[in-house]
Amino acid sequence: MKELLLHEMSFARLAARLKRFEQQIDVIILRQDGVFVRPATGEAVAAPQPELAFGSADAFYSPQVGAFLKAITTSRRLDWFQSVAAGVEHPVLMGLGKLAKRYTTNHRQAESMAEWALWQALDFLRAGPAHRLNHSEGRWKRFGAREMQGSHWLIVGYGAIGQEVGKRVSALGGNVTGVRRSPGPAEGATWLITPEKLHGALPSADLVLLATPHTSETENLASAEFFAAMKPEACFLNLGRGALVDEDALMAALDQGRPAFAALDVVRTEPLPAASPLWQHPKIFITPHDSSETPGTTTRADETFLENLERFVNGQPLKHLVDRAVFAG
Amino acid sequence: MKELLLHEMSFARLAARLKRFEQQIDVIILRQDGVFVRPATGEAVAAPQPELAFGSADAFYSPQVGAFLKAITTSRRLDWFQSVAAGVEHPVLMGLGKLAKRYTTNHRQAESMAEWALWQALDFLRAGPAHRLNHSEGRWKRFGAREMQGSHWLIVGYGAIGQEVGKRVSALGGNVTGVRRSPGPAEGATWLITPEKLHGALPSADLVLLATPHTSETENLASAEFFAAMKPEACFLNLGRGALVDEDALMAALDQGRPAFAALDVVRTEPLPAASPLWQHPKIFITPHDSSETPGTTTRADETFLENLERFVNGQPLKHLVDRAVFAG
Repeated sequence: MKELLLHEMSFARLAARLKRFEQQIDVIILRQDGVFVRPATGEAVAAPQPELAFGSADAFYSPQVGAFLKAITTSRRLDWFQSVAAGVEHPVLMGLGKLAKRYTTNHRQAESMAEWALWQALDFLRAGPAHRLNHSEGRWKRFGAREMQGSHWLIVGYGAIGQEVGKRVSALGGNVTGVRRSPGPAEGATWLITPEKLHGALPSADLVLLATPHTSETENLASAEFFAAMKPEACFLNLGRGALVDEDALMAALDQGRPAFAALDVVRTEPLPAASPLWQHPKIFITPHDSSETPGTTTRADETFLENLERFVNGQPLKHLVDRAVFAG
Repeated sequence: MKELLLHEMSFARLAARLKRFEQQIDVIILRQDGVFVRPATGEAVAAPQPELAFGSADAFYSPQVGAFLKAITTSRRLDWFQSVAAGVEHPVLMGLGKLAKRYTTNHRQAESMAEWALWQALDFLRAGPAHRLNHSEGRWKRFGAREMQGSHWLIVGYGAIGQEVGKRVSALGGNVTGVRRSPGPAEGATWLITPEKLHGALPSADLVLLATPHTSETENLASAEFFAAMKPEACFLNLGRGALVDEDALMAALDQGRPAFAALDVVRTEPLPAASPLWQHPKIFITPHDSSETPGTTTRADETFLENLERFVNGQPLKHLVDRAVFAG
């Protein structure tokens, strides 16, 4: 029997589907009152030593996050940690990666994030801000809009998120260039180029989306030079990390009219302070890093966990296993 | 030789592609200064008697619309009129239909209109208004959003527009029920039902879109009873005609919380007066009947015209020919 720790709310969703593992897995839940309990018996567990843990959003965004992390980090036998996040940049996740023998990520936020990109792209192409201004003043004035069909997208970072965006854009008749260092499958992209070719591809894109992790190489990749290479009528979108963008350069570029607009789900300082000039800029729209916040994301993260749990129990290789070298630093 | 009348701006786009018809077609253009001219010779034409006419948006939305219509309506030999509109409800178009031996419509606005539907649906599903309110106040507050993927659409009127929407929604992972009297191909729809079944299908739809013409049968089809059958968390969209909707019933229904929101590209009175309560309603967003206003729509209307011109010259049946009985009334 392996002890599995998960949050009470995750267990509520998954109990029926965990039943088939009851011969191999001993479930411990963290209740919303902060008490650890074996749901099978109702018995409280003073100091759990989980071997497996599912770091669901329920656990990480609940008041019980401290107790949850303490149980995992003090366990002397943490064998596998399933994260709901795609990245491991966060110090807490890096710490868990060091502790767990195996650490697996989840990439199923990508579908929701891809819909964010379509939302923001369509709002830009259809002149959303101008329509809303006229609406607010009761002014009936027809506008020319632009189409997704036939639009040119440049997607910087063509991993799980980039591909989910690319698939949707191409299904809607858009053209997609993906930017990625490694070759291999690139669903939804007509062209796949390497980062060295990025600047050459900027001038022909109507929509430029960042969907790449933050590393020392990608820090400030969206620089003054980057924006100067874009079309004046293009839109810049960021689903990656705030640190990919030189925000002062972005505001200056927008003021100079190139690109035309920016939609950001991530910024350098999160939460963004109310006094930030980014909020005030008329050509920037910011969402509070919630592009993945849908019920579908929760359901798909559960699927990722269950699929890996099945693999774990059967001694098969886990999916989305992070190389231990990543946590060695 | 047949005389073809078109607007100067349409000719500017099409001149190179009209060249191949120069043995059969004598082009007359209406210039922006109101003068009719044969571009081949530069010769002015005092009173053109066109046999063919292309009623492009350039002609209909220009200050020269009066001269354009006069030339067509006073021609004693109008053989074919190509409209850029899909419908013939407008009295001017009905009048042209009576005069022309053959009247053909154009359905290529549908692609742009379908993108309008995606735009408004995503803005609703992603909580656009709430995000914008927080943005305007510099408030970083994460929201749950909903997904297009897995959403259920009910599309009332499954013709050119309905199918363009349906194709896109299903490509994005949504489920589509089309409502149409006639059987036959229904691209993008999982289910096709007849209008008698409409009310039974309303309770399961997340998005309900009207994309049907205005006839005595469809007048006020979106009634108090219709809205009462919708889900409280659903969105109502109208790309058809304002007269399909009982607007008082819509506002009352929104006030009662069912449906949650309405996005309208058409209203009963257009242009909508600034004093209309529709503008003020917090759960209604209105665009000024401009969902088809894109450069792509212009390009595709040109294609429709050129394809029919080719057919005309070759003595083949014209596409989208309207039955003369429609104009008999």
